[in-house]
Amino acid sequence: MIIILKSGIGDGEVEKVCRRITEMGYAPHVIRGEFKTVVAAVGEERGRPDLRLLEALETVESVMPVQQPFKLASREVRQTPSEVRIGAVTVGGGPIVVMAGPCSVESREQVLDVAARVKAAGASVLRGGAFKPRTSPYAFQGLEEEGLKYLAEARRETGLPVITEVMESDKIAVVAEHSDILQIGARNIQNFSLLRKVGEAGKPVMLKRGMSTSIQEWLLSAEYILAGGNPNVILCERGIRTFETATRFTLDLNAVPVLKRLTHLPVVVDPSHGTGHWEYVEAMACAGVAAGADGLIIEVHPKPEEALSDGPQSLKPDRFAALMQRVRRVAAAVDREA
Amino acid sequence: MIIILKSGIGDGEVEKVCRRITEMGYAPHVIRGEFKTVVAAVGEERGRPDLRLLEALETVESVMPVQQPFKLASREVRQTPSEVRIGAVTVGGGPIVVMAGPCSVESREQVLDVAARVKAAGASVLRGGAFKPRTSPYAFQGLEEEGLKYLAEARRETGLPVITEVMESDKIAVVAEHSDILQIGARNIQNFSLLRKVGEAGKPVMLKRGMSTSIQEWLLSAEYILAGGNPNVILCERGIRTFETATRFTLDLNAVPVLKRLTHLPVVVDPSHGTGHWEYVEAMACAGVAAGADGLIIEVHPKPEEALSDGPQSLKPDRFAALMQRVRRVAAAVDREA
Amino acid sequence: MIIILKSGIGDGEVEKVCRRITEMGYAPHVIRGEFKTVVAAVGEERGRPDLRLLEALETVESVMPVQQPFKLASREVRQTPSEVRIGAVTVGGGPIVVMAGPCSVESREQVLDVAARVKAAGASVLRGGAFKPRTSPYAFQGLEEEGLKYLAEARRETGLPVITEVMESDKIAVVAEHSDILQIGARNIQNFSLLRKVGEAGKPVMLKRGMSTSIQEWLLSAEYILAGGNPNVILCERGIRTFETATRFTLDLNAVPVLKRLTHLPVVVDPSHGTGHWEYVEAMACAGVAAGADGLIIEVHPKPEEALSDGPQSLKPDRFAALMQRVRRVAAAVDREA
Amino acid sequence: MIIILKSGIGDGEVEKVCRRITEMGYAPHVIRGEFKTVVAAVGEERGRPDLRLLEALETVESVMPVQQPFKLASREVRQTPSEVRIGAVTVGGGPIVVMAGPCSVESREQVLDVAARVKAAGASVLRGGAFKPRTSPYAFQGLEEEGLKYLAEARRETGLPVITEVMESDKIAVVAEHSDILQIGARNIQNFSLLRKVGEAGKPVMLKRGMSTSIQEWLLSAEYILAGGNPNVILCERGIRTFETATRFTLDLNAVPVLKRLTHLPVVVDPSHGTGHWEYVEAMACAGVAAGADGLIIEVHPKPEEALSDGPQSLKPDRFAALMQRVRRVAAAVDREA
Repeated sequence: MIIILKSGIGDGEVEKVCRRITEMGYAPHVIRGEFKTVVAAVGEERGRPDLRLLEALETVESVMPVQQPFKLASREVRQTPSEVRIGAVTVGGGPIVVMAGPCSVESREQVLDVAARVKAAGASVLRGGAFKPRTSPYAFQGLEEEGLKYLAEARRETGLPVITEVMESDKIAVVAEHSDILQIGARNIQNFSLLRKVGEAGKPVMLKRGMSTSIQEWLLSAEYILAGGNPNVILCERGIRTFETATRFTLDLNAVPVLKRLTHLPVVVDPSHGTGHWEYVEAMACAGVAAGADGLIIEVHPKPEEALSDGPQSLKPDRFAALMQRVRRVAAAVDREA
Repeated sequence: MIIILKSGIGDGEVEKVCRRITEMGYAPHVIRGEFKTVVAAVGEERGRPDLRLLEALETVESVMPVQQPFKLASREVRQTPSEVRIGAVTVGGGPIVVMAGPCSVESREQVLDVAARVKAAGASVLRGGAFKPRTSPYAFQGLEEEGLKYLAEARRETGLPVITEVMESDKIAVVAEHSDILQIGARNIQNFSLLRKVGEAGKPVMLKRGMSTSIQEWLLSAEYILAGGNPNVILCERGIRTFETATRFTLDLNAVPVLKRLTHLPVVVDPSHGTGHWEYVEAMACAGVAAGADGLIIEVHPKPEEALSDGPQSLKPDRFAALMQRVRRVAAAVDREA
Repeated sequence: MIIILKSGIGDGEVEKVCRRITEMGYAPHVIRGEFKTVVAAVGEERGRPDLRLLEALETVESVMPVQQPFKLASREVRQTPSEVRIGAVTVGGGPIVVMAGPCSVESREQVLDVAARVKAAGASVLRGGAFKPRTSPYAFQGLEEEGLKYLAEARRETGLPVITEVMESDKIAVVAEHSDILQIGARNIQNFSLLRKVGEAGKPVMLKRGMSTSIQEWLLSAEYILAGGNPNVILCERGIRTFETATRFTLDLNAVPVLKRLTHLPVVVDPSHGTGHWEYVEAMACAGVAAGADGLIIEVHPKPEEALSDGPQSLKPDRFAALMQRVRRVAAAVDREA
Repeated sequence: MIIILKSGIGDGEVEKVCRRITEMGYAPHVIRGEFKTVVAAVGEERGRPDLRLLEALETVESVMPVQQPFKLASREVRQTPSEVRIGAVTVGGGPIVVMAGPCSVESREQVLDVAARVKAAGASVLRGGAFKPRTSPYAFQGLEEEGLKYLAEARRETGLPVITEVMESDKIAVVAEHSDILQIGARNIQNFSLLRKVGEAGKPVMLKRGMSTSIQEWLLSAEYILAGGNPNVILCERGIRTFETATRFTLDLNAVPVLKRLTHLPVVVDPSHGTGHWEYVEAMACAGVAAGADGLIIEVHPKPEEALSDGPQSLKPDRFAALMQRVRRVAAAVDREA
């Protein structure tokens, strides 16, 4: 950490700050500039008192971190990309993995129908929500356990592994029983007790970025799961909140190359939630792959105008098939299969 | 809802949209402009299929809501301000209620000491975190149940009611046993299962705005609690995330008059988290009261530079006492006591 | 426009609103719902009094626009994509146009050297700043007219047309004399007098999105130029300001498919400013093309660590050549040449 | 500046970075931590090569500034608050200065009428726009020179000094002739040629914050004017752009105490543009004064529902008079007159 002192601070005060740094277990190095005095505090920061606390001192102007605060998620700990295996499917490193299916599981017929169609078009994972986090208490909240059973049946019929969201700790067991990847939704990105418990569940986890989560905070949330002993974490960019209202969120594809630099974890892009509008999904799916994503997650519904959630951003199956064609070509152009 | 059709849509297509609106249980009214045709769909929207779904149709350009989606929280259902009673303290309508105390409960001595001092300065509720939502898994996570006991002891000693955060459903009972107001933190604003369960706990709830939660979404989260049968909901503005980095968050005081127009629920302002810096807390506390807030929640610590969390934004007890003096004068200027 | 009245408004008040709408030259249609009364005001809105003004009435809750406020930029006026011709180069519709060169023109040698190298790698337009908008008055402000001459010389030597920024009205003539495309920078996106005058200059204009400009406002700024009689407008997405600090700005590629839906104007993407970091430029250049952009603008400098501006986001010439290889393959994958 | 090197950088590379720092005119100090090596570069940064350039090196992870980049605007150069004198009115330090009047000058009668009324209510400066920056080219663009004459007439009649916006360099002279304070609007905050020229005009300047301008950038824009030899700069907070749409912008009152810490320049708050809605203006005006602002600027119109611009955020004269009553009481509560 670098501690910047206020202008005009005397030697005695500098000495006090250094003493406090030493007490906190770090080695202080004073650098005197023409206008500002700065103290560098050297030492491992993780698991030790947080030096940003020194901002509470009246003599300190600000404290700037030097190290990234996450460790297990970092490239320093693991330099080669992680691969998360779900049966025959591997996310990370190799081919682009496309996860597709309805936003919500609405009926047995719906999910079996969509599963067969997305498989035929080339998807390798089935998505579908049984527990749904809805902004309004008056909206459809999901089929819950019944929905999980339909997903499991679709898995048996198609052989596609299943990803579905888990919203609370006491449902982890039942969700894990019927699915292959546990999804943590954007709204639970900093639900730390859920993160901790999902880290102990022994299943791969896909962690969606929150709508106002910085990349650093996102990796710290991943760190909760990794520190719980679960190395199988997939990150999913799904759009951040900005001032622009032409799209539902602003899909932040910049996060893809940034993550590739900072972490070894695989990265999936969700152009359905990211844009909120079916007309923009294909373009942003292709862009995500070109930016270096390891996978895509896409909402497909046979009748979007009758969907119980997120119809406006769902693709009809034939549009999804067309998207797959184009995604395959873009993947090849960046030396990836799809 | 107003459904705006794409340009150049023929009569047959307009007819189809109207039929779909009728099927969904609304009455369609077509308005033909020079460039655009618009269909107004009339009918109660809450608990009925969501007309925004029509955006999934290729003939529809966009769908615009006319009604606010929340009901129990709205001024339409209750025109006079709600008052939330916690023993002898009432939040809403009357005097400004100041909640103060340490960010985290760190020891018995610390919390008893701070409790006595904030009471002496004029606070009427004691705050303190026992379960702490921390961005990093390596940071101090709170004293948990032990912390709750110290809070309860401070309550007995001072007579101040206690507010503390609850982070997961299976801790609601123990938190409710030791405290008077259950706080839902910013990171759980859309943890809908927690909202639902806290709605059934029979204790007043203070719901902090999430860092990227719109006012409408915030009121929908309040609606989860209200719809669960708990009318005692207090809203707390604590800063939103913007591009500005000079403050930790951007305390959005505009939310105060907006909420006063939209809802009957009382509104509290948190200038400590909102600014993240002790030097700005007094100014923004006064501003919050001048904007019309019903209360303040402020972090006070005897030694901020040794705090286990949020030291940089904590006030020393004597600064808090000075703040109270000034807040009282501003409250009087807007015809409120404090 | 749709005018939403406050709840509980009586017939007399509705009548007054309708009278006012009629006075403003529109035809009012009243729709009475269970909770809300809404008035649709029918008529061409451009060049007429702005109905949003009715929000000033105490009986009106809000006013919602139905039409897009821009006209000449819209798909309604021109359904096929516009093509902007600069000598032998055409932006829009056909091959991807890559504009490349240094952020600032720093010397004759520098610009001639870079021009030759970006041409060899496949760029078809030379970029370079002679007048530089700098956040700090103490930073290098550009070589001004001298820089323009070097650009013109590089154009003669390489045959590449030149794009450069114009920052004030009384420099339009001299900039136009030495260049082929006038660039309006992000900071001048709502400098309406400059937009108007550049619209009269008879040269193609590239209009960069401002860092907090909505897509609708951006198209209204384009409308100023189009309304001035200049149809040759190119839009350039260069990143918006969000809470994320891992990149300098957040390059908003979602804008590409949104613009393709709303306007006929060609769209160029600037991954250099958009990310602010050379390591992310190639990924986002490829993503921009995959998203459907008509061109790219990229900063190239022979010694980025000695650049007088924006070194951290500049590519060395050999990295730019590698980027061109990859961009060509992605372009082919989406049926475009590059 | 602090230069953070990438992990695993060898001594030879550290040496190269230090050499480069020395060449740029700074003294390097190397600090070796367990994981990271950091180099502090000591020396005055203003007017010297920008060390952030070192981010272009492949061995450098990031560069962090230690000094604030502005100088003349800083508290280091001037520790006591600046006072800007406009005839008998002084902005800064003493009483709260209220500037009020119509958004646009629409007619001689309108401006004379409003001027008399705001003066009667206690305003001490008259505002009114003659040149109007309008998002749409089809909107009313102001009465221009004719409007200036009406303002000057209102000044003669009431004795109130006049503030009005100047949008382009070649109008500075005529605007300065008819007014007392030149306003730079939010959209021209980084129109650096205009800033430079207005700095030479010899009149006080009020500089509005741009809608996505950080406080640091805002002060750098002020620095352009100060460095041009004009010490009479007033800052005006008028709302920033965020995700929240319940208000037109998000008035950022946090900027008030932040500015009071960083700069000696006076600060004015604009609750009319900041909220965009007349119902919120009084609350936010009071909050601005409580936060420590030196003044307010407020839009007043005799018939807001017929205003040619910004009617929805304009107060009727009697509401403005009521606001003044309340503002006076809040000012007294924070030991200021109004």
